[in-house]
Amino acid sequence: MATSTRRDLFLVVATLFTVGLAVYVANGHENLKVSVGLSVIAGLITSQVLPKLKQTFVNARLSGVDVLKKERSIIPETMGLPTAIIYLITLFAFMPFPFFAWFDGKARLVHEDDPMIGTFPYHKLGEILSAILAIQSMVLLGFADDVLDVRWRYKVWFPAIAGIPLLIFYYTNFGVTYVVMPIQLRPYVGDLVDLGVLYYVYMEMLIIFCTHTINILAGINGIEAGQALIIGLSVIINDTLFIFGNDDRASVEAHLFSLYLMIPFVAVTLALLWHNWFPAKLFVGDTFCYFAGMTLAVVGILGHFSKTLVLFFLPQIVNFLYSCPQLFRFIECPRHRMPRLDPDTGLLKASTVKIGGKKPVSALGKLMLKFLRAIGLLRVYQSNAQGDILECNNLTLINLLLAHLGPMTERNTTVSILIVQILCSCLAFFIRYKLVTLVY
Amino acid sequence: MATSTRRDLFLVVATLFTVGLAVYVANGHENLKVSVGLSVIAGLITSQVLPKLKQTFVNARLSGVDVLKKERSIIPETMGLPTAIIYLITLFAFMPFPFFAWFDGKARLVHEDDPMIGTFPYHKLGEILSAILAIQSMVLLGFADDVLDVRWRYKVWFPAIAGIPLLIFYYTNFGVTYVVMPIQLRPYVGDLVDLGVLYYVYMEMLIIFCTHTINILAGINGIEAGQALIIGLSVIINDTLFIFGNDDRASVEAHLFSLYLMIPFVAVTLALLWHNWFPAKLFVGDTFCYFAGMTLAVVGILGHFSKTLVLFFLPQIVNFLYSCPQLFRFIECPRHRMPRLDPDTGLLKASTVKIGGKKPVSALGKLMLKFLRAIGLLRVYQSNAQGDILECNNLTLINLLLAHLGPMTERNTTVSILIVQILCSCLAFFIRYKLVTLVY
Repeated sequence: MATSTRRDLFLVVATLFTVGLAVYVANGHENLKVSVGLSVIAGLITSQVLPKLKQTFVNARLSGVDVLKKERSIIPETMGLPTAIIYLITLFAFMPFPFFAWFDGKARLVHEDDPMIGTFPYHKLGEILSAILAIQSMVLLGFADDVLDVRWRYKVWFPAIAGIPLLIFYYTNFGVTYVVMPIQLRPYVGDLVDLGVLYYVYMEMLIIFCTHTINILAGINGIEAGQALIIGLSVIINDTLFIFGNDDRASVEAHLFSLYLMIPFVAVTLALLWHNWFPAKLFVGDTFCYFAGMTLAVVGILGHFSKTLVLFFLPQIVNFLYSCPQLFRFIECPRHRMPRLDPDTGLLKASTVKIGGKKPVSALGKLMLKFLRAIGLLRVYQSNAQGDILECNNLTLINLLLAHLGPMTERNTTVSILIVQILCSCLAFFIRYKLVTLVY
Repeated sequence: MATSTRRDLFLVVATLFTVGLAVYVANGHENLKVSVGLSVIAGLITSQVLPKLKQTFVNARLSGVDVLKKERSIIPETMGLPTAIIYLITLFAFMPFPFFAWFDGKARLVHEDDPMIGTFPYHKLGEILSAILAIQSMVLLGFADDVLDVRWRYKVWFPAIAGIPLLIFYYTNFGVTYVVMPIQLRPYVGDLVDLGVLYYVYMEMLIIFCTHTINILAGINGIEAGQALIIGLSVIINDTLFIFGNDDRASVEAHLFSLYLMIPFVAVTLALLWHNWFPAKLFVGDTFCYFAGMTLAVVGILGHFSKTLVLFFLPQIVNFLYSCPQLFRFIECPRHRMPRLDPDTGLLKASTVKIGGKKPVSALGKLMLKFLRAIGLLRVYQSNAQGDILECNNLTLINLLLAHLGPMTERNTTVSILIVQILCSCLAFFIRYKLVTLVY
């Protein structure tokens, strides 16, 4: 059953993936062909290597208990590390190809309109190098976190450090720091507003946000790799909408660059998910969440579609905002907020938090809970005569879902969250390509 | 005593370092001033941070027993990781400075002859990025090795993988692959010989050699960081010989680039050595050996003085060649070949290996031992009537030294090896600047 489920999922996504890629390969993008070829190889290697590494990781005490299973078996952690390393090696191997056309001088068929599109002139070498450098920095810090178990107040800044090479490249490359204003505001502030240094702050915030939010929407088999996969596929689809029949050379360049990074990412993530899917044979670890978040942020920034990227992170944004009352301690926050396993049924139930159990809850905290309850985003399990909330679900998207859709298997919980993710991507495309015309 | 020793050493090297650097700062190299400033800060931060991290590393089980001490205390391992991370962040922070002059357009005083020397035009952005990327890849793989304890037959290739970005940059940058021939050979092969792809093989071999040899000449307090420090200082001295009153712009550029990487390296290594010096408060781990070796290799390759660099690795070369009979199993090789501690005197003695103890030694093995004995590079502890060697010192430079200079304290053993390293650097300079005229 479990295996068959994994196979179903694998087939569905793999098909989607392959079909999407076939489009390019058919379309004569030489470098994309190479990228797809290397990505498929990387994916296969990942799926083969991960099981072989299990014992090594367990021996190194990089392992954890799968608490949402009756047998509570110990399985290897931090499998995002080999995944990320294979991804990085794939990029290393791919790097020279876009330069060949440039060396030859003679044009290869890379793009129907402009044969040189998608190839790397020298000023673009820095771009891919700084991208890889930023991703690798994040992998290194993520791995250090998995091994050393760094405190939150420190590791919250890890992405900011890893992002530096990217910002420096952006800066040294005379990065544009202005943003296009919505039509409604233009009479007052003009068409373009130069954010200057604020633009760098925005990029750093985007990086910090992307890397941590995947890490926050976590805790059940397949959820971290699953969401990363769907966001990655959404980015790939978005890129395809730009590279065909687009006369703006710069934008085609940017989206081809994005594809060069995203295709191998989707491939290795798929292989990782294959082993992490319920019942998980391994855990992905913070390393993967950081790696995935940073890769997506890098692509969004260098591909110049960071606003679209943020739309793809809708479920993560909701989950983050919804978690704030607990994250910032307005109400109590237990060390783990993952769902609870009902040993009798083997189903997952929303985990709950006792309000004012340990320390009295602030008036602001009470207000937040009342508000969430009013808009139907809170399931109250216990309240007193005065109507004070005494026990409610922990404030995470997963618990909210379980509180409303009732107990379900871990597998179905993951599937439901991933369906939400897919629906949000559809919404994102609608906003980006329909609603946007109202403001831009 | 121990502390005072550490202080002595620190003062000696720190003075040497500061004096050397004062020369530039006085000389108006804007970017070198910045580099020195950042390096001093990085060194201080490293020396402050390492002790604070001890417990974290011990908790993460990244710790080892100091077997050459009576008390056999457990001390933290892998302290090369925070050292390397601080180094990388320092490079990130330094990166933008050499570009400022280019942005401003207006020339800063960077070099007496050519104000733009030592600043980065865009084609050089890729150079520093690929350098950092190669070093960081090695740190990541080194840390993975420390944590996962990878088998030799796999990790021997780690530097080759980490070196890829560097070779790709070299390639995409139309790297020169010819070498200047010695005068004596020119009549037959010409002045220059283009090695083509062999040149890349040479570079990969250099990278693999540099990263592993520091790891092989190890095992006593302060030896890994000590040798790296001396080689680093030798490179800095060599660079200074080129950047002053040199009309060849390219060579000045190359050696300034080398300094940008070496000055912070020497600073953080000094801070690490300060804590790793006898009696060690922490171990540096494979992470440091890999990090140091790769940083030196990168500088040698991009600075175009790889032959000179190899000369600075003389003790490592000797130690490697001397170890070969054991490394390649011509004679038995115990898991650890570090010296033995005499618990009564507290002094170190050469560790020995029983020949033909477990399995009969090959004729070739016997021949090698006879040869080493003949040239006085082997101390025989036991032999039979037929003159067959039954027990001799393990084939490492450290054991050879102890076998000949008799038992001494661990501190003095390290000091002797470092003195050998310094003498070899002097020899290297003599070869490079005197003997070389005979062949080039």
